[in-house]
Amino acid sequence: MASGRNHGFHIPNPHIREMEQDVLYHIALETKSHDLPAMFGNVKFVCVGGSPNRMKHLADYLQEQLHVEIPAGMTLCNLGKGKARYAMYKVGPVLCVSHGMGVPSLSILLHELFKLLFHAKCKDVTIIRVGTSGGIGLDPGTVVVTEEALNTFLEPYYTQVILGKETKKPSVLDRGLAEAILGCSSPKDNFKTVLGKTMCANDFYEEQARLDGAVCTFTEKEKMDYLHELYAAGVRNIEMEAVAFAAMCHRVNIKGAVVCVTLVNRLKGDQVTATNEIMREYQRRPQRIVGRYIRQQLGLD
Amino acid sequence: MASGRNHGFHIPNPHIREMEQDVLYHIALETKSHDLPAMFGNVKFVCVGGSPNRMKHLADYLQEQLHVEIPAGMTLCNLGKGKARYAMYKVGPVLCVSHGMGVPSLSILLHELFKLLFHAKCKDVTIIRVGTSGGIGLDPGTVVVTEEALNTFLEPYYTQVILGKETKKPSVLDRGLAEAILGCSSPKDNFKTVLGKTMCANDFYEEQARLDGAVCTFTEKEKMDYLHELYAAGVRNIEMEAVAFAAMCHRVNIKGAVVCVTLVNRLKGDQVTATNEIMREYQRRPQRIVGRYIRQQLGLD
Repeated sequence: MASGRNHGFHIPNPHIREMEQDVLYHIALETKSHDLPAMFGNVKFVCVGGSPNRMKHLADYLQEQLHVEIPAGMTLCNLGKGKARYAMYKVGPVLCVSHGMGVPSLSILLHELFKLLFHAKCKDVTIIRVGTSGGIGLDPGTVVVTEEALNTFLEPYYTQVILGKETKKPSVLDRGLAEAILGCSSPKDNFKTVLGKTMCANDFYEEQARLDGAVCTFTEKEKMDYLHELYAAGVRNIEMEAVAFAAMCHRVNIKGAVVCVTLVNRLKGDQVTATNEIMREYQRRPQRIVGRYIRQQLGLD
Repeated sequence: MASGRNHGFHIPNPHIREMEQDVLYHIALETKSHDLPAMFGNVKFVCVGGSPNRMKHLADYLQEQLHVEIPAGMTLCNLGKGKARYAMYKVGPVLCVSHGMGVPSLSILLHELFKLLFHAKCKDVTIIRVGTSGGIGLDPGTVVVTEEALNTFLEPYYTQVILGKETKKPSVLDRGLAEAILGCSSPKDNFKTVLGKTMCANDFYEEQARLDGAVCTFTEKEKMDYLHELYAAGVRNIEMEAVAFAAMCHRVNIKGAVVCVTLVNRLKGDQVTATNEIMREYQRRPQRIVGRYIRQQLGLD
């Protein structure tokens, strides 16, 4: 099994070349029983997002937008169905995969996804997180393209404890990709798309300064002061994966972008109270922007 | 909306009493449109685990074991279906809920679950994580009941960054509960059940010293030295939720236990290669132990 920089990206793990087979446990694929190059060799774009349902919707949307033909009697199939911890749909050159919530869940997926792309001999792959977030000082429904991913100390690092020692990996995103995606917004859109910094928290309630968790140890004034500090530092939204996503893509040299809609303006409240219909419409917005970017790259526009 | 210590546990958040309604967003329930006391008021046990499929299996198993009658024409229903980020099944006095993978995903669930139990006016609830893990120095298929949950520095703390400052919450489990669950193992079982310390990592590959991730920066010798250090410190398994589970249960004064089967002996390898059939049998083992404990508590034995 070969390793190295020969597929447009780099798998920085010398042990991989010594493995006779590789079981990608959480995505229920393996090198021995699956012909990964045949199944995935043509993948050029990977879209990831938290929820399995949302990824199914994105796959259906891209199937239309990219004119991917599905033979009569067939339907898009969840490749992870029943066995994997993630939902995975393949739409021509695009793979849409759910990553669950939070950095650890995302990191398991990215380790196995990067190895999948490597084993499948994919080249020039771009990966985009299409997600949801809480906004700061933005109207709910605004789409934020992340210009820099920060941890909860507002540092551009993904921190891990490896063999008992703390290590910090730089969370670097591709600036050109972010700007190209931003350029796919249109004045005709009924929502705004902006560039901004994204803070990645490891919980939804306390680390995001919400007053409505089961536990809360701060006052409303302390919360508001903190959110205004974040805004002053250029943070426009908070989610739970960006810093690890950026650092892991950077580490393997795959271009990555984070495109999230904001479901709430945190300067005005904590709870997500929009109706299901409005929420669905919001969640389609980053999908539309990313769909346009992929169409453009595939020469369909 | 009342708050305080009046339901056998404590919701340490003074803001909750000021809220007119509470949207438990990720479990798709709310105080205004759902009669939570009617739906959940009789809950005495909550079982949580990573995978939705496994929680469905546990619910089916408990339905049999606890002789919970399901009226003709009905079936166990995923209360989160379609809208929630977690799968939730109610089997008489037991709620079985998936929590996804990793501390952040678990923490979102526990915040909302604790508020659900509070709003539903539940009393004397016990919560048990029924999960999977990597074992250290144990035959695969061994069940570990956690005596102490440790972070990757081998400290009994759940670390969060709240309003930009690091805070450490003690991860205390109920010793009596762990021993009572351990006492439900039987010499007739075709597997061992042991008490041991559990290390909680924030990733499956690098933080758990696996050589088979997309990224690996250490040698096999460094890995083995580290795993032997963990063993010497009393760690018998590694998973990805225990430290936050213990700390959050302790904070709200709900008795909690962690009961995980080991899928692999990390001293002998990294990859999870057992067949699906063996894996399913392994995953049923902690369910059997916990099922016996619940039967005993409900006076069914």
